[in-house]
Amino acid sequence: MFSVTIRDHMMIAHSLRGDVFGPAQNLHGATYVVDATFRRATLDAEGIVVDIGRAAEVLHAVVGELGYRNLDDEEALGGMNTTAEALARVVADRLAERFSGEGLDGLVVTLHESHVAWASYERPM
Amino acid sequence: MFSVTIRDHMMIAHSLRGDVFGPAQNLHGATYVVDATFRRATLDAEGIVVDIGRAAEVLHAVVGELGYRNLDDEEALGGMNTTAEALARVVADRLAERFSGEGLDGLVVTLHESHVAWASYERPM
Amino acid sequence: MFSVTIRDHMMIAHSLRGDVFGPAQNLHGATYVVDATFRRATLDAEGIVVDIGRAAEVLHAVVGELGYRNLDDEEALGGMNTTAEALARVVADRLAERFSGEGLDGLVVTLHESHVAWASYERPM
Amino acid sequence: MFSVTIRDHMMIAHSLRGDVFGPAQNLHGATYVVDATFRRATLDAEGIVVDIGRAAEVLHAVVGELGYRNLDDEEALGGMNTTAEALARVVADRLAERFSGEGLDGLVVTLHESHVAWASYERPM
Amino acid sequence: MFSVTIRDHMMIAHSLRGDVFGPAQNLHGATYVVDATFRRATLDAEGIVVDIGRAAEVLHAVVGELGYRNLDDEEALGGMNTTAEALARVVADRLAERFSGEGLDGLVVTLHESHVAWASYERPM
Amino acid sequence: MFSVTIRDHMMIAHSLRGDVFGPAQNLHGATYVVDATFRRATLDAEGIVVDIGRAAEVLHAVVGELGYRNLDDEEALGGMNTTAEALARVVADRLAERFSGEGLDGLVVTLHESHVAWASYERPM
Repeated sequence: MFSVTIRDHMMIAHSLRGDVFGPAQNLHGATYVVDATFRRATLDAEGIVVDIGRAAEVLHAVVGELGYRNLDDEEALGGMNTTAEALARVVADRLAERFSGEGLDGLVVTLHESHVAWASYERPM
Repeated sequence: MFSVTIRDHMMIAHSLRGDVFGPAQNLHGATYVVDATFRRATLDAEGIVVDIGRAAEVLHAVVGELGYRNLDDEEALGGMNTTAEALARVVADRLAERFSGEGLDGLVVTLHESHVAWASYERPM
Repeated sequence: MFSVTIRDHMMIAHSLRGDVFGPAQNLHGATYVVDATFRRATLDAEGIVVDIGRAAEVLHAVVGELGYRNLDDEEALGGMNTTAEALARVVADRLAERFSGEGLDGLVVTLHESHVAWASYERPM
Repeated sequence: MFSVTIRDHMMIAHSLRGDVFGPAQNLHGATYVVDATFRRATLDAEGIVVDIGRAAEVLHAVVGELGYRNLDDEEALGGMNTTAEALARVVADRLAERFSGEGLDGLVVTLHESHVAWASYERPM
Repeated sequence: MFSVTIRDHMMIAHSLRGDVFGPAQNLHGATYVVDATFRRATLDAEGIVVDIGRAAEVLHAVVGELGYRNLDDEEALGGMNTTAEALARVVADRLAERFSGEGLDGLVVTLHESHVAWASYERPM
Repeated sequence: MFSVTIRDHMMIAHSLRGDVFGPAQNLHGATYVVDATFRRATLDAEGIVVDIGRAAEVLHAVVGELGYRNLDDEEALGGMNTTAEALARVVADRLAERFSGEGLDGLVVTLHESHVAWASYERPM
């Protein structure tokens, strides 16, 4: 299995609902450094998993739909608790939609929220 | 599949038995930067894999049982060769015990011993 | 010249005032990974620049006064534009106050806001 | 499952064939930071996945066969497009040959080409 | 003193002249991860060292003048030995020209050529 | 001012004397990732600060004199408290001795003891 990963980031405000979140129930924010991994069992004719230039543009567009916003107000997120693991799925699902039918076998999205914590979501295509 | 990873560290002394270890047969030491990854197929009602605050506390307790010690003298380790890969299993098994019955699907523990070498152990729950 | 650096982090919401900030004029947020560097021309009797345990506690308290908040609402910040460079000074000045009279010669505080941008403030003691 | 990873690097010149590569069709170059991961379901009698000293030497030899060269001129690469993902397979296959029959279960090789892009190839033994 | 640093990268081919370079006398290549640090004694009215958006664009343009090229053929480099330290000065001098008269006090440019080697050039404005 | 930095590491056991060290008074250990920075105001005729191959060899020899040892037993360290900051000076002074008379202007040595703590010593030549 081959994979290619590209890194971008987004800076958001949000709050989390539930006692388990302690002080993160307050409105605060995060920089998420976002790693998007594209998987493919075999390389295409040009020897690649994905056009890395296009993949970087699409990832940049996807994180641009979330960044520089207060996620508590984003209607598209439907009131979900915007934890790092849940946002990783949002990013992965949006990438999957835009790369559908292009021969990829899977996607992994990792959101690093600090030097000591990160979350991932992995899905087939 | 979702995952959440948290990072901590421990500083230990030890020696390794066997010609294969060369100069590491001498008493020396290591900082292990420890990444604990918690896996879960679906998120719980609050949108999380694990309570990250509690996970950080438990990981800190587990590495605290090993850190600031000479592992050659640790009875609980039963004379095992305390290689990074073997210690990764010790940490993972101790975490698994404390998170049993909480809906997790798997654990991965990685011990980074330098900028050029690390070891992991991965197990189901 | 000797120095010791410790790392912590804080997660905040804020907005920035001024056309130069583009989309960062919206309410958004950041994780700041905070490096505090303590400088001293000579080591003390125990061979250290600073008690690293105490330094870590003080830094944790200082970032705790800012983290998990919307900085736009923090009266103590007096309506300042909370750019990374300006916040680096806030953290450095608060550390300087708490380490005054302990033989340090200088402080540097660096706030990493992503994998591609960081800001520092350096001051004498 | 256990794994041990070691890191080395190689510096090469090359060009890539195909419109999809844009300016990378020009002769240019890359530093590839190379992570080789050795997997094994159980540890051997000494508590290790692999003799890490020997693994580092073999990896160094393998990257030494590619580094400080213009890969466009390497006959052994048979005119392949030397993308990071394709080179990851070359390195993994050469490692697999040299570690055949030693009880390993799999190999992963990752080539980091910058702080924002990397590629991997994973194979059984 | 305040500073702001931004990171970009460039991928180049080159060879180095002189016995001291050993195998790097061959045509090979490098990814340089480039950190550009802008220094200023006081913040401007908006609380910044430099407009980080514009700084990122200018840095991207400067590394774009060198990247995806064989530096041995670049007339603008006048036959210089394109070591990392010499290229750091080229990048810093080009940045200095474009930020002249904007109140900056100094610049540092660091080129990381691998996980184990980097070079810097520091200059006043 | 130019600089070149190279990275290596050493793994040692030691204990620290003094109540301020808390549990680090026990025999334990550390991996120190060691960055050695060589400074020079102007480049030499070949466009370099230092022969990086030789610098890497000398650094490797210097850390090899300390690594895979219990520093509490090292007579050459004369009973000093082997804190990271004090060891940074030991490494820097040993490097300075071996690079004396070669046109360098200064040295900085940084010892990273974990992902959250590091210490440096900076000296002229």
